Amino acid sequence: MVSFESDYIAGAHPEVLKRLAETNMESLPGYGADKYSESAKEKIRELIGVKDAVVEFLAGGTQTNAVVISTMLSDYEGVVAAETGHVSSHEAGAIEYTGHEVLLIPQKQGRIEPAVLSAYLESFFSDENHEHMTFPGMVYISHPTEYGTIYTKKELEMLSGLCRRYDIPLFMDGARLGYGLMSRESDLTLQDIARLCDVFYIGGTKVGALCGEAVVFTRGNRPAHFMTSVKRRGALLAKGRLIGVQFDALFTDDLYFDICRHAISMAERMKKIFITHGIPLFIQSPTNQQFVILRNDRMEQLKKKVSFSFWEKFDDDHTVVRFATGWSTTEEDLAVLNEALEEITVPY
Amino acid sequence: MVSFESDYIAGAHPEVLKRLAETNMESLPGYGADKYSESAKEKIRELIGVKDAVVEFLAGGTQTNAVVISTMLSDYEGVVAAETGHVSSHEAGAIEYTGHEVLLIPQKQGRIEPAVLSAYLESFFSDENHEHMTFPGMVYISHPTEYGTIYTKKELEMLSGLCRRYDIPLFMDGARLGYGLMSRESDLTLQDIARLCDVFYIGGTKVGALCGEAVVFTRGNRPAHFMTSVKRRGALLAKGRLIGVQFDALFTDDLYFDICRHAISMAERMKKIFITHGIPLFIQSPTNQQFVILRNDRMEQLKKKVSFSFWEKFDDDHTVVRFATGWSTTEEDLAVLNEALEEITVPY
Amino acid sequence: MVSFESDYIAGAHPEVLKRLAETNMESLPGYGADKYSESAKEKIRELIGVKDAVVEFLAGGTQTNAVVISTMLSDYEGVVAAETGHVSSHEAGAIEYTGHEVLLIPQKQGRIEPAVLSAYLESFFSDENHEHMTFPGMVYISHPTEYGTIYTKKELEMLSGLCRRYDIPLFMDGARLGYGLMSRESDLTLQDIARLCDVFYIGGTKVGALCGEAVVFTRGNRPAHFMTSVKRRGALLAKGRLIGVQFDALFTDDLYFDICRHAISMAERMKKIFITHGIPLFIQSPTNQQFVILRNDRMEQLKKKVSFSFWEKFDDDHTVVRFATGWSTTEEDLAVLNEALEEITVPY
Amino acid sequence: MVSFESDYIAGAHPEVLKRLAETNMESLPGYGADKYSESAKEKIRELIGVKDAVVEFLAGGTQTNAVVISTMLSDYEGVVAAETGHVSSHEAGAIEYTGHEVLLIPQKQGRIEPAVLSAYLESFFSDENHEHMTFPGMVYISHPTEYGTIYTKKELEMLSGLCRRYDIPLFMDGARLGYGLMSRESDLTLQDIARLCDVFYIGGTKVGALCGEAVVFTRGNRPAHFMTSVKRRGALLAKGRLIGVQFDALFTDDLYFDICRHAISMAERMKKIFITHGIPLFIQSPTNQQFVILRNDRMEQLKKKVSFSFWEKFDDDHTVVRFATGWSTTEEDLAVLNEALEEITVPY
Repeated sequence: MVSFESDYIAGAHPEVLKRLAETNMESLPGYGADKYSESAKEKIRELIGVKDAVVEFLAGGTQTNAVVISTMLSDYEGVVAAETGHVSSHEAGAIEYTGHEVLLIPQKQGRIEPAVLSAYLESFFSDENHEHMTFPGMVYISHPTEYGTIYTKKELEMLSGLCRRYDIPLFMDGARLGYGLMSRESDLTLQDIARLCDVFYIGGTKVGALCGEAVVFTRGNRPAHFMTSVKRRGALLAKGRLIGVQFDALFTDDLYFDICRHAISMAERMKKIFITHGIPLFIQSPTNQQFVILRNDRMEQLKKKVSFSFWEKFDDDHTVVRFATGWSTTEEDLAVLNEALEEITVPY
Repeated sequence: MVSFESDYIAGAHPEVLKRLAETNMESLPGYGADKYSESAKEKIRELIGVKDAVVEFLAGGTQTNAVVISTMLSDYEGVVAAETGHVSSHEAGAIEYTGHEVLLIPQKQGRIEPAVLSAYLESFFSDENHEHMTFPGMVYISHPTEYGTIYTKKELEMLSGLCRRYDIPLFMDGARLGYGLMSRESDLTLQDIARLCDVFYIGGTKVGALCGEAVVFTRGNRPAHFMTSVKRRGALLAKGRLIGVQFDALFTDDLYFDICRHAISMAERMKKIFITHGIPLFIQSPTNQQFVILRNDRMEQLKKKVSFSFWEKFDDDHTVVRFATGWSTTEEDLAVLNEALEEITVPY
Repeated sequence: MVSFESDYIAGAHPEVLKRLAETNMESLPGYGADKYSESAKEKIRELIGVKDAVVEFLAGGTQTNAVVISTMLSDYEGVVAAETGHVSSHEAGAIEYTGHEVLLIPQKQGRIEPAVLSAYLESFFSDENHEHMTFPGMVYISHPTEYGTIYTKKELEMLSGLCRRYDIPLFMDGARLGYGLMSRESDLTLQDIARLCDVFYIGGTKVGALCGEAVVFTRGNRPAHFMTSVKRRGALLAKGRLIGVQFDALFTDDLYFDICRHAISMAERMKKIFITHGIPLFIQSPTNQQFVILRNDRMEQLKKKVSFSFWEKFDDDHTVVRFATGWSTTEEDLAVLNEALEEITVPY
Repeated sequence: MVSFESDYIAGAHPEVLKRLAETNMESLPGYGADKYSESAKEKIRELIGVKDAVVEFLAGGTQTNAVVISTMLSDYEGVVAAETGHVSSHEAGAIEYTGHEVLLIPQKQGRIEPAVLSAYLESFFSDENHEHMTFPGMVYISHPTEYGTIYTKKELEMLSGLCRRYDIPLFMDGARLGYGLMSRESDLTLQDIARLCDVFYIGGTKVGALCGEAVVFTRGNRPAHFMTSVKRRGALLAKGRLIGVQFDALFTDDLYFDICRHAISMAERMKKIFITHGIPLFIQSPTNQQFVILRNDRMEQLKKKVSFSFWEKFDDDHTVVRFATGWSTTEEDLAVLNEALEEITVPY
């Protein structure tokens, strides 16, 4: 069955797989000390325009969030996140597992509004005594957010400015970063992100890799003995080449961005298909995840033709569901969706 | 340069890579719910002869040790391990990171002797009051050990009997399990291990996979909601297929065991080469890791020809080093080693 | 200066101190194995009417919350609490320090409404798959709440019923339990609480002791080897008698309840004084903590005469402050407050 | 029965209790911000001769060890301790509970020998790559040790020098510090300790207080927002005065040292009694804990007259037991012991 369940339904992008095969027989040092990891890091550094940025590879998104947050926070600090943030709700308490609190603040369509953050930080740091409370020690944002929405350059500048005023790092979860960058509505570049964030990651798992995320420390702020901290969290791969080779492929000949452009293009066509069939969008997402509201009976019918993800209950009769595109989404897939929708939206 | 640094210097065994490529375009559910993961689990269950064993995949050895140990121990318990155990010394405190103590006991060539374990457990559980001490809640052994040595069936039966007498699980770290099983000196089968251990894992990373370990819970003892516990430790791969497909390949047509037999055969020839050149063995290892004692000046010479791993200082003039074989080790590699040794062992 | 800052401004109630002095020279076993600890436990068991309840002493409220919650939760579980719960906001992340998430739900005047809890639990447990989320494994309520409000018997029965339906324990933080029980508005008895909660504690620190809280496990549910778990959290006092003797005194001749009745009586007079002076109550609290809204300029004036606690900003010109009574509050203290308020509420 | 079980069998020294009573009715701020805590800290600073030392109070020894070690270590570090160290063996894994490893090294009569520490640190820091191992980030010593032995000034200077060479703090567990200082064999002063250690604590619980330990950070090295870190570990007492007043009393008129001198004097007489009766000393302890070897049958007889602590099995027929003295030990107690020994050492 045609699947829009997620952007990680298929294996690796063929170019990525090809590079794994081509380099497979080489003897390489372990734990990320191989030449492909180094090459990938160098390509990323050049792309973001920060020569002395430090790039580190990890295997998955939740792991990356937990490692970055727990190694950068001080003992008495927690991480500020939107109530809908991935770290707040869908990581099974991975941040708390490291001993740190996620400090929840309200959100709008998945985004933290600068005014909300400003009020929160001002209140915390201006009052006399908060020693019985967890200190905000980092701000976590996801871009695109869990609802597919994106920050504008102005918003990111404001968030970054706030973080710098209070001297706490801004961390961007970029599990789907490329889809945000390639969105037609985005006015943010990768260089902007590197300039405005203190640490961020470029997701691979959801953008054509089998696994892997590239964390970028932009300001000489990689925690000391980071490899040891990664090791003790069980996150160090013996064959670090697995991620290094994949990122080296993703950042060769613009592959990473091509993948994202393709997925965005597919998502835009998909959006039109929904609109044509009168399916209401739950949210205006300019990226590769589309959230629509389905009548429950129609949802059940549709499930028989294409697969997608349950998101949340809308009301007793309707459900919010997610359709995602990725490198493997084809025109044929969309045609199947179109046809399936036609069947279920016949007046009855 | 020819490398004997470890058994994870190369990529995946070609058959494993082939299966990844063949299945790459398929749409599959994430998080290990794919059919290849299920197929691999079924093959392992059949092989070990425990129909209701539960198999779970994780990415690497340290991660597996930390997940298994921390989810199976009670709050007041620690894990008993040899002083030389991987969890004791080379995982950067990964077990302690989960909040649990590693209770060190003496070892012999990497092995825990049944008499030593017996004395330890008897002393702990027979005395009146140990409430100010960490309770031994699991026994961890590695097989082969960190020194390449293996347990006999009789020893494993004794260790298993002790664990069952005190009602604590026996956990076998099988990062290199196949090399132990295929050793000519081994009288243990995989079925024996499944019968005698309460939980063990079959290592993939060091036996031909890009990454991946298969944990086997043999007695209905997988911790409840294990996936959630894995997720919160950052150890759940979105594309679980990556490991499932690899293990499915490893356990098709005896590949896993062929790989190990090859590596053992190469190790045996290597051992002869060392003996021929008068290089003393540090330990009598019947598996794929060989530890030899090199004079420091010769070690420096040898380094220019082949690569290997520093293990430990022997005395001021000598060093213990490790040579490992794997699926990618060839006769040509051994010939290079032989030649290199000839050069350095010319009397001078 | 007369202080209404908290209910822990003074030392121990004189009767408590007297017992400490009387028993001071006796040789007693350590770690809570002394006869006074046993006597106090027995008195509590009788009072609550649960013969086989298990009582344990700990030193303070945050410690008790962390120990109870972290020893009773499973690895994949978190504790449900009101956004205003002490564990949610004023314990500096003590629960998260143990590796567990606090699952926040909305509150009303500090209370969790049964309907809100019901909706939350139903949603979590009825939907297909929540394995990427922290499981609710306990419900935490404080009684009286952080706003001095109390649950009715009916509410507590409903909360208890919900917890039992989903088989998760209900934990009552009773740091100020006696003030709730002695409130004129309360229809709950200590026996009700023991019957409806799975675990709760009777606070000593805020009710006349120098330190100490008595945790009551009502249903054979004390975690195994609890003393060891307490020890490893650094919460085991060598001279356990310190808490045992104090609780033995508090539960002799109704002292605990006399203390609370006195404080409630003082709080009621205080409330009248506020009303008489036209000072608006922020909340209708029937217990020993009173929250009032002060104009900022008047608050500054008042500070010069009596001390109290900042609670939260009300608006730009007003602040919510807390006045607490305790065993040491006297009529003279209230007279000073009355006089001080007269001065500042003169029309100006 | 006369008890020599420990140095915490009695309540508080009468002078300490008297001060608690005298200050009991005063209204004081909570959480250690009271004037008695401040006074006690000032007295300690003067005594140790470090004007800008920072003193903090905690409730007990294990708690203090866990708080100090876990707040001072970096993520990738563990604490080096003797195999017999209190943190290694009798704290039920309290250090591991904080996520950090205790790095065990051999000991002699409870002491870490400078040469052993030197070899350990040199080996760790000189070799190329230890990134898969826990970094030694602190050295923990107890003084007196768990066997009652003490360090000489020269030894402490050497340990301190090593720590400074490798830039890791030296932490002294001084649960019984006074007994070490007052030992006739000691050539160490409190000023020496403050100069040579980076952090240490002066134990109160075992030296006349009901509870309480005074941590001294000697070099501007108190971790930032220490109170918040203490709070989140459940170690912050609301009525901080409880410890402040006691330490203020202990450090008034030399009380702390008088208590220790008395206990040492009693221990010396006790040692003579043992020698007179031909009871072999297990170790030559110059402090208030005496370890002797008893024949098992005689041990059983003796138990009926006086109480003491089981320490460890010596051989099948003998046991090592501990007798401790404290502020409450009297000449009469020793007379009872003498008489009891006479009965059991009658030739039979």
